[in-house]
Amino acid sequence: MKVVANGLLEKISGPADLKKLSIEQLSDLAQELREAICKQVSTSGGHLAPNLGVVELTIALHYVFDFAHDRLLFDVGHQCYTHKLLTGRQPLLSKLRQKNGMAGFPEPRESHYDLFSVGHAGTSVATGVGMARADSLMGQGDRCVVSLVGDSSIVNGVSLEGLNNAGTLNRQFLVVLNDNGMSIAKPEGAVSKYLDQVRVNKAFGDLKKNTKRLLSEIPMGNQLERLYERAGGAIRGALHPHHLFSEFGLVCVGPMDGHDLPALIQMFEQAKNFDRPLLIHCKTIKGKGFDFSTKDPTTFHSPSPFEVERGKVEWKKKGRSFTAAFGDALTSTMQKDERVVAVTAAMPDGTGLSKVSPHFPKRVFDTGLCESHAMDMCAGMAKVGIKPFFAVYSTFVQRALDQVFQEVALQSLPVRVCLDRAGYVGSDGAVHHGFMDLNLFKPFPGIVMLAPSDEPNLIAALEFMRMYDSGASFMRYPRDEVPSHPISEDVPPFQLGKAHLVRRASSEKPDLAILAYGTEVYEALKALQNMGSEASNVALYDARFAKPIDVDLVTRLVRSETPILTIEENMVSGGFGSSVLEALNSRNLPTNSVHLMGMPERWVYQNSRAGQLAEVGLDAAGIEQKVRSLMVQIQRPRRKQVKRDFRVIEAQS
Amino acid sequence: MKVVANGLLEKISGPADLKKLSIEQLSDLAQELREAICKQVSTSGGHLAPNLGVVELTIALHYVFDFAHDRLLFDVGHQCYTHKLLTGRQPLLSKLRQKNGMAGFPEPRESHYDLFSVGHAGTSVATGVGMARADSLMGQGDRCVVSLVGDSSIVNGVSLEGLNNAGTLNRQFLVVLNDNGMSIAKPEGAVSKYLDQVRVNKAFGDLKKNTKRLLSEIPMGNQLERLYERAGGAIRGALHPHHLFSEFGLVCVGPMDGHDLPALIQMFEQAKNFDRPLLIHCKTIKGKGFDFSTKDPTTFHSPSPFEVERGKVEWKKKGRSFTAAFGDALTSTMQKDERVVAVTAAMPDGTGLSKVSPHFPKRVFDTGLCESHAMDMCAGMAKVGIKPFFAVYSTFVQRALDQVFQEVALQSLPVRVCLDRAGYVGSDGAVHHGFMDLNLFKPFPGIVMLAPSDEPNLIAALEFMRMYDSGASFMRYPRDEVPSHPISEDVPPFQLGKAHLVRRASSEKPDLAILAYGTEVYEALKALQNMGSEASNVALYDARFAKPIDVDLVTRLVRSETPILTIEENMVSGGFGSSVLEALNSRNLPTNSVHLMGMPERWVYQNSRAGQLAEVGLDAAGIEQKVRSLMVQIQRPRRKQVKRDFRVIEAQS
Repeated sequence: MKVVANGLLEKISGPADLKKLSIEQLSDLAQELREAICKQVSTSGGHLAPNLGVVELTIALHYVFDFAHDRLLFDVGHQCYTHKLLTGRQPLLSKLRQKNGMAGFPEPRESHYDLFSVGHAGTSVATGVGMARADSLMGQGDRCVVSLVGDSSIVNGVSLEGLNNAGTLNRQFLVVLNDNGMSIAKPEGAVSKYLDQVRVNKAFGDLKKNTKRLLSEIPMGNQLERLYERAGGAIRGALHPHHLFSEFGLVCVGPMDGHDLPALIQMFEQAKNFDRPLLIHCKTIKGKGFDFSTKDPTTFHSPSPFEVERGKVEWKKKGRSFTAAFGDALTSTMQKDERVVAVTAAMPDGTGLSKVSPHFPKRVFDTGLCESHAMDMCAGMAKVGIKPFFAVYSTFVQRALDQVFQEVALQSLPVRVCLDRAGYVGSDGAVHHGFMDLNLFKPFPGIVMLAPSDEPNLIAALEFMRMYDSGASFMRYPRDEVPSHPISEDVPPFQLGKAHLVRRASSEKPDLAILAYGTEVYEALKALQNMGSEASNVALYDARFAKPIDVDLVTRLVRSETPILTIEENMVSGGFGSSVLEALNSRNLPTNSVHLMGMPERWVYQNSRAGQLAEVGLDAAGIEQKVRSLMVQIQRPRRKQVKRDFRVIEAQS
Repeated sequence: MKVVANGLLEKISGPADLKKLSIEQLSDLAQELREAICKQVSTSGGHLAPNLGVVELTIALHYVFDFAHDRLLFDVGHQCYTHKLLTGRQPLLSKLRQKNGMAGFPEPRESHYDLFSVGHAGTSVATGVGMARADSLMGQGDRCVVSLVGDSSIVNGVSLEGLNNAGTLNRQFLVVLNDNGMSIAKPEGAVSKYLDQVRVNKAFGDLKKNTKRLLSEIPMGNQLERLYERAGGAIRGALHPHHLFSEFGLVCVGPMDGHDLPALIQMFEQAKNFDRPLLIHCKTIKGKGFDFSTKDPTTFHSPSPFEVERGKVEWKKKGRSFTAAFGDALTSTMQKDERVVAVTAAMPDGTGLSKVSPHFPKRVFDTGLCESHAMDMCAGMAKVGIKPFFAVYSTFVQRALDQVFQEVALQSLPVRVCLDRAGYVGSDGAVHHGFMDLNLFKPFPGIVMLAPSDEPNLIAALEFMRMYDSGASFMRYPRDEVPSHPISEDVPPFQLGKAHLVRRASSEKPDLAILAYGTEVYEALKALQNMGSEASNVALYDARFAKPIDVDLVTRLVRSETPILTIEENMVSGGFGSSVLEALNSRNLPTNSVHLMGMPERWVYQNSRAGQLAEVGLDAAGIEQKVRSLMVQIQRPRRKQVKRDFRVIEAQS
């Protein structure tokens, strides 16, 4: 990747340095930023195309506003690299998305220029409305508030609720709509069709002649007309009275070219002084700057490391992901059962459904970034007798919690939910971990929660879900590769609430029984293998179900005085192990020989996934350590043949 | 209340009977329905004004469609009484919202004419889209799908996401917008202003002359124009090309008079055959039919029993509610601290904020039915240094789970959330219980969860929240009256994670320690009082905090071999008691003498709140029974001086 020699970027240690440049120099700076970003992402992976699309928008915003004082809110936030490089974080770039490096999303711990750590879409308007109201209450209404929102985020329910409220503000509030005509994949939904058809108004300096007349014909026209008189020439010239969002009470201008730096700067200058909510619709090109990324912005949305050799992109080899395994397994399921359909909320690639849709174009539905709607749509489908499989990230299904409550669980509808990226997600960091899906969905009567430990189990789990019609079922799997050598290629079918013994202890009376949920089965197996004969008398179960848990098994183990270790990649509080405690307690059985491992109650920031598992002791090494300490603890009283009572237990602690 | 003598209603045992009536007779039927509904609600309480507003709409829909085959989806659902009375449920009316009587919301267990049990807003478009897609896939695309949505629901994020997706359907799909210009209270938001300003097109039979011209001027005009040619005369005549929802891809007609039965029937007849998504905007009058209810639709939204004597409404006396106590306490808090503001999502009356706003009109914010936005707005406010108190029902805060995760907890922002209607809610039934707020919010690092047992404790809890700045705090209280004789008027301040001893045991070594969370303190107290001297050696603690729990206390109790009984009005699985188990287990302390009481894992349907508590054993009688059985269990082994081991415990179970 060639780097331009101007050296403008390296001189910018904060927005003040940016403001010293002439408007002409800004184009060169944009080019330098693009090359720096592309060079880094090609080395480490990261979000590429979204960042390339907003270089000019970000430069222009920082050129016009002062975000040490004013408020800049990112939405989703995977387009914040230029912003970070302009606000003093060039030294962190070489460790993009790595431990102690530059987070891939806005991160207030890094800089006060980042207001919220975000990664979920649609929040910037709503938080911006809050900041605007609070600034005004605090007598600092002169601070401008700017939300930078993508065209896919804007159709999310939270955005739309935010716009409805923004429309009532009696003060400055600027929404910059970054419309690249692309969600993460090609977007779905009527609004995106609408935005596609709105043409760029290149010559927005020329007053559109009929604007005033049109203003008087629409319901809120009088109000708009008054605002029109107060607006600067650029705003008046680009006014779009029939824009979708005008009817939400915002003054709407554009669309304008989101790469035209002088025009953007002129528009933002006027927007800064406009005392009512304003939406500037900017058309941008996702991936702008490089042929390979503009041609295929979906692939280059968030690529893994790559090289560009003579215009051809080379990818570093990777193993087979759970996502890919799921895509293939679901394709088979759909071949077998014509009632099965697949649903995604704007993540066909991330969830593996892009492997499915070529086979079944009419049975794969993309709702756009609308998780709440997607869950309800699935409920409606299930009501009719269709079998919807909603593939969604664990962290994003949080947006559909209430829909799972009312439209799915309360109706006992057999919606199937496949939670990708459950557990630690690596470099995306704290905004994306799937750390609490068990907590969220366990409370609902009749819901089944299961997890495969490897690809053969994923196939078996999916078959269980296809056949399970009594209520909703939730399967979870991590952002990881499937074990390349599964314990067995031919696993027994999933049976409701039954664990599966994967490694027998050497005697009838095991020293310890491990119940691992999901891929922790393999971490536990590695730990036991590393321990060799020391651990030969430890049994290992693939728990398979976190709800209902295998009560017979845990009861039997406790009654036979076999200590239990539960391991899961969910919060330890309120997760699978906690259900084991509750089940034993409610049966008046003791829990002192039950030990829980899971995700601790703290935020875990960007790092590799392996690094994160190690950080919290959920890798093979951490499990080995835990098993060793338990063996000491367990064997000591047993050797002494001491009756267990309160005092003995205290002494152990 | 006089009843008309026509006797049309009593002859209708299903929609087939309705279809036998002439259009002229339908007005009389409407009158009979209004009187039947009003008579019942004045006796038993229930939703009045919303039901009075949709009588004609519902009659017309059932007159035109066949909802044994077609699909009718209610939104929120508190306007379903006419629908229920027309679909065979007149015999249930006299037990409206009572056990085994007519549910106040749509309820599939009652009738196949009810597709979803709903109570939360905004879901009907999304579930309707799902049913429409699934019906088409199943080869039964001839089934019409109709969503009846209120103007307050339509601005909810789920609705808007649904509309964005509905706009892409290539088949019949009808949204009837019931626009009464009222949410539960007077609505907020730009969209409601917009709808206010759209005038009723009374003579929609006359083709609006400029419709065709206007169609060509808007971005999706060509498409609309083609649809225009296909539409019947009534639709063409009422076409509204600049309607907000046109830009979501729906053909929009109206507004029309939602009480004009012949016009509604004519319009629905054509809508039935229209093969694209269509929105019919109907203006209705909330509370229509009675002077008292049209004049004050907010009070008569969901009144308690009343009598109308000579035009004056008399209310049955009620005690002081937690809601009222909260309203007063928050008013004091706001007097003391000018940084405190209050936020509601369309529930100023239900949450007690209507008591606050006259004192602080500029510091009370109503976001409309937008819980997700409201939570994010609070996050934005807290970021600036304002102290937002978001008053919201426990069941509705489920809509803001993901916002609590990302915008509140992950940022450690001190947003204060006051959860009204936590626990069983009585006659609203399963759609409204606050049964899982502990499960939802406990997983987040740094979040504090507390509950007052009575009004003095509520005041103290609120003061704690005002001062607590390290993170978010969530307080919960039930839909109930405050204890009229609190244990003490002067309670000690809340101290983070500290329980409060409210009743000492008679000896240094209590037989049992009860840790009750929230108002269960009073149920436990009553139980102990009823037991007299038998229970004199039982201690009772007001737990106050479910997160963090009082670890010192429970550790001390277990170490001193004092059995513990936890009582809470949250799911027993994953709630307060479960945290006690986890805390002990993680400290290697035994849990066999810890006993948990809480809400069971099953749906609890409409009944009085007292009846629901009794049903699940969370009233004084249930607690008394539990304490008695524990005393037997506890005292038996102690008297025998048997060492506790596994076998003894098994024998007890």
